[in-house]
Amino acid sequence: LRDVYTPGVARVCLAIQKDAQAALDFTALGRTVAIVTNGTAVLGLGNIGALAGLPVMEGKAALFADLVGINGVPILLEETQPARVADIVAAIATSFGAIQLEDFAAPECFEIEQLLQARLQKPVLHDDQHGTAVVTLAALINAARRSDVNLCHSTVGQIGLGAAGSGIVRLLRAYGVQRVLGTDRNPQAVARLIASGGEGVTLESLMQRADIVIATTGVKGLIRPQWVRKGQVILALSNPDPEIEPLVAHEQGAAFAADGKGINNLLAFPGLFKGALEARARRFSDAMLMAAADAIAALARGDELVPDPLDKALHEQVAAAVRAAAEPTAPA
Amino acid sequence: LRDVYTPGVARVCLAIQKDAQAALDFTALGRTVAIVTNGTAVLGLGNIGALAGLPVMEGKAALFADLVGINGVPILLEETQPARVADIVAAIATSFGAIQLEDFAAPECFEIEQLLQARLQKPVLHDDQHGTAVVTLAALINAARRSDVNLCHSTVGQIGLGAAGSGIVRLLRAYGVQRVLGTDRNPQAVARLIASGGEGVTLESLMQRADIVIATTGVKGLIRPQWVRKGQVILALSNPDPEIEPLVAHEQGAAFAADGKGINNLLAFPGLFKGALEARARRFSDAMLMAAADAIAALARGDELVPDPLDKALHEQVAAAVRAAAEPTAPA
Repeated sequence: LRDVYTPGVARVCLAIQKDAQAALDFTALGRTVAIVTNGTAVLGLGNIGALAGLPVMEGKAALFADLVGINGVPILLEETQPARVADIVAAIATSFGAIQLEDFAAPECFEIEQLLQARLQKPVLHDDQHGTAVVTLAALINAARRSDVNLCHSTVGQIGLGAAGSGIVRLLRAYGVQRVLGTDRNPQAVARLIASGGEGVTLESLMQRADIVIATTGVKGLIRPQWVRKGQVILALSNPDPEIEPLVAHEQGAAFAADGKGINNLLAFPGLFKGALEARARRFSDAMLMAAADAIAALARGDELVPDPLDKALHEQVAAAVRAAAEPTAPA
Repeated sequence: LRDVYTPGVARVCLAIQKDAQAALDFTALGRTVAIVTNGTAVLGLGNIGALAGLPVMEGKAALFADLVGINGVPILLEETQPARVADIVAAIATSFGAIQLEDFAAPECFEIEQLLQARLQKPVLHDDQHGTAVVTLAALINAARRSDVNLCHSTVGQIGLGAAGSGIVRLLRAYGVQRVLGTDRNPQAVARLIASGGEGVTLESLMQRADIVIATTGVKGLIRPQWVRKGQVILALSNPDPEIEPLVAHEQGAAFAADGKGINNLLAFPGLFKGALEARARRFSDAMLMAAADAIAALARGDELVPDPLDKALHEQVAAAVRAAAEPTAPA
């Protein structure tokens, strides 16, 4: 009892007071991730509130525990204003080794993530942006490889520029994709794409020009079959109903077509966080995200675009790749 | 996978959106307690900061899990201003079934607890005040019974009116103790005692007049042996070094004397929280605290003032007593 309770625990407290890094050796801090939501964009359900999002956060926590031995702690925020969200998360961030932002609506999610990354010296990841982007990039690496297309020289069309779409565009550009077209019913989302070097186009123009089409709109059947061009790669990622059924896209001549059932961010986030925590990284860099995508792509077998997410060895390999890609950190 | 993750979890989310009470049935919310500190008064170490307090919070979490199956989640706050502390805790309180405030310094701890109790419809307990008070009351119930003293008609002298001392005075008065004397080196602490109906006195006067003396000062050896009167009950609770060694007090004629090694708030908090959560209580009432004290007192054996805190049956019995004493709650 004295080791975990009064008075023997005092010597551990004093060691941490002297050197904050000691907390990583003496506590579970380095294996603990906050899973934070304010419930403004839960699954495909929209703004249902933080409490109603709890089952999703508990699901993520269960997957963290089972797949990579991380303690995921659901934190439900009663706040939507970005600066105040960042203030609250920053005020409790000492409790966690890293922060996973989950199911925050766009565009507030971008500001919240940026504010937190600027304030905290620990990894912060908005999973709906970057976890989804990592898995999408992994799928595209394999699709391009098998259709003998050079991904970086392809024209990528992104339909839907919310959290997931923006994250995908950002990571593809970091990976080296030079031509990105995009469309969204929200002009501000298109303006963000243009500001970041992409081109805003209509949906039909996008379908005509893009070699690779990615859709994250939540709108069932948005892509008309007759728009599909021969040899296109199409990822229609909305759940549970895709923008076009892969079978239909194939019938129209698509080289590869997949929906969101397999392109699941569960492939990425456990290994991303485990790798970042083990490296004691201060942030998620693009190099870490791309290393995760490469590792996921390399583990797909046969004609899969991505591997089975319930394979535990997968998550360990993603973690190892992320850890290796992390920048060395100076002692705090 | 679909039960804990997309898309099957959506139906659980929607059920909670419709009826917040459903969260208690479908999630771990009703077994989850935040263990919140800002590190301003950790053990006897003082203001060492939130991160350095983490080992204590993890110790409490381990005891919660082991003794009553509750998930204790350490929350380390980087904030000391009471209104802002309350704002932050209130903003994340949806994540938890109840809130345990831990190692907050006096007098800020009083304001923080009051603000939170007023804002939240769930149990909030500052353990250093009320947990300690429950265990002290349990010890006094047994000491009075065995020395054939009527506790309510005794004069109680409280030396040290910080968080623990204030909590003890408050609970003893609620229990029916009519005459409370108190002393503290801080005049504001004495003023609070007087405002609540007690009498401020000098240390020597207190020792002369009190039938029961309780000390929570952190000052080793504060009580001089020659001050002890025959038949007095003395609880010198500071850890690790008491205000007077029980053996010395006995030699001077004390009827009962004990130090803080046995009078540990671990006896109270697991059962208090389990009982409150099971009752779905909206707050900790005095009736619940007194029920816990009675249950603890009844379980002491032989010449113990309080029972062994590592007896799991004890915590279940405390929880049952607290649950029975909770006010019935209206549906939310």
